Amino acid sequence: MLAMSFRFSIELPVRWKDIDAAGILNNAVYLTLVEQARYGYFRHLELLEGRADFNFLLGEIKARYLAPGRAGMDLTIRIRTSRLGNKSFDQEYEVACGQLLLARVSARLVWADASLSSCVIPAEVRSRISTFESIPERS
Amino acid sequence: MLAMSFRFSIELPVRWKDIDAAGILNNAVYLTLVEQARYGYFRHLELLEGRADFNFLLGEIKARYLAPGRAGMDLTIRIRTSRLGNKSFDQEYEVACGQLLLARVSARLVWADASLSSCVIPAEVRSRISTFESIPERS
Amino acid sequence: MLAMSFRFSIELPVRWKDIDAAGILNNAVYLTLVEQARYGYFRHLELLEGRADFNFLLGEIKARYLAPGRAGMDLTIRIRTSRLGNKSFDQEYEVACGQLLLARVSARLVWADASLSSCVIPAEVRSRISTFESIPERS
Amino acid sequence: MLAMSFRFSIELPVRWKDIDAAGILNNAVYLTLVEQARYGYFRHLELLEGRADFNFLLGEIKARYLAPGRAGMDLTIRIRTSRLGNKSFDQEYEVACGQLLLARVSARLVWADASLSSCVIPAEVRSRISTFESIPERS
Repeated sequence: MLAMSFRFSIELPVRWKDIDAAGILNNAVYLTLVEQARYGYFRHLELLEGRADFNFLLGEIKARYLAPGRAGMDLTIRIRTSRLGNKSFDQEYEVACGQLLLARVSARLVWADASLSSCVIPAEVRSRISTFESIPERS
Repeated sequence: MLAMSFRFSIELPVRWKDIDAAGILNNAVYLTLVEQARYGYFRHLELLEGRADFNFLLGEIKARYLAPGRAGMDLTIRIRTSRLGNKSFDQEYEVACGQLLLARVSARLVWADASLSSCVIPAEVRSRISTFESIPERS
Repeated sequence: MLAMSFRFSIELPVRWKDIDAAGILNNAVYLTLVEQARYGYFRHLELLEGRADFNFLLGEIKARYLAPGRAGMDLTIRIRTSRLGNKSFDQEYEVACGQLLLARVSARLVWADASLSSCVIPAEVRSRISTFESIPERS
Repeated sequence: MLAMSFRFSIELPVRWKDIDAAGILNNAVYLTLVEQARYGYFRHLELLEGRADFNFLLGEIKARYLAPGRAGMDLTIRIRTSRLGNKSFDQEYEVACGQLLLARVSARLVWADASLSSCVIPAEVRSRISTFESIPERS
């Protein structure tokens, strides 16, 4: 499926503290892993340096947990932007250990001004993401 | 809406460390807050003590972030079981600071045996939850 | 011992996620608990609101773990300032569950300007702390 | 100084969530980084696999914070065992970003049985550590 191709990913080890009292990678930590991929993605697109207007809020997140994560795992977190709207955009993520897919996550991100009010995504941000992902800017 | 009534809630302060570099309650922490409400809920239903067979996995979680959380907030986290299936059940949660609703979260929990394989929810667990919530046991 | 009296404390529940794979309150979480007591202490002394110059760095911290913390515990964290220097001050903390003392922590905090360079503690900050603790301002 | 040589280290990226509201690597996270180095160290010494008797508690930890950590940093955490006693041992750690030393940490670890009571370190554990570190077993 073309829809499931990802052009950016990061490698990140599970930390011992990520493992909870049930002996598995804690459910909340997946959002932190996905956040780290997002940070790396925006850094890769050179959107973080010197941009006072780079500011978004998480509007919604959905995670499906497919297999338990364990101590000592080296994870791959894949990320792509699947929709680029006027004031918001959608991303999809996969958290995997080698061939084992641990979780699928999707998120809606809402662009915000300094007072955290929703606003239009700046043109250059839109342009870099749409170019990188080869997706139309409006959808 | 009757569907949005909750029979159990916990009070939990935001910790300073819950606030991230963007100055707001970090998105992943909401799953930890909700997890704490779940822990309190099962403890209230006396399901945690002396039960070797009390074991579930998070199958899916969805969070909608409605207002940013801040340092110093005292939160209320409400929880209810909205569906009680054969091998899984659904829960809904609200994270609020007074009248301000910060997030709505829903989760699917899958009952598991000691090897983390899906299995039927024990009768007593089902019974206590359905009695507490006044919901039919199968749906 | 008079030296071990504390004039301020907070109550804070252990979160389920604070418990690690060894089944006990994770060692790093104690610093977060102590940080929360510090935040409450400075808020109580009305030092946080509207002060652009309230800024310090942790220079050193020492924790002695006396008894393992467990899920479900409601903790008391006591805090006091034990030394108030020119550019730095020292604090002591206790983490307890009822009569059970879990940990003793001490910290050196270094006052800092906006660029995180060490600087002299503002007069009003010193004054409020020394008044609250009944300690001499210089030591 | 020979005393400051380290025979084992791990590489670990700072996560965006490790950065707190003050914009720097949160003080508690250093203990998590050091814990991760400890986990890697014991795994490297093949002490974790199939050993039901591998169990210790942190008795004391001390951290000196030398320079603030920042988002995006790739860290090196160095670890060595500096003392190997009968029932406890001491470790030292350094957290660095390239040439920049962020923190020095030292810890006392107390061997424990399944009920978390202090007990004698198993002979094979002592032997592997003392061989790896070239330190006398008793001190």
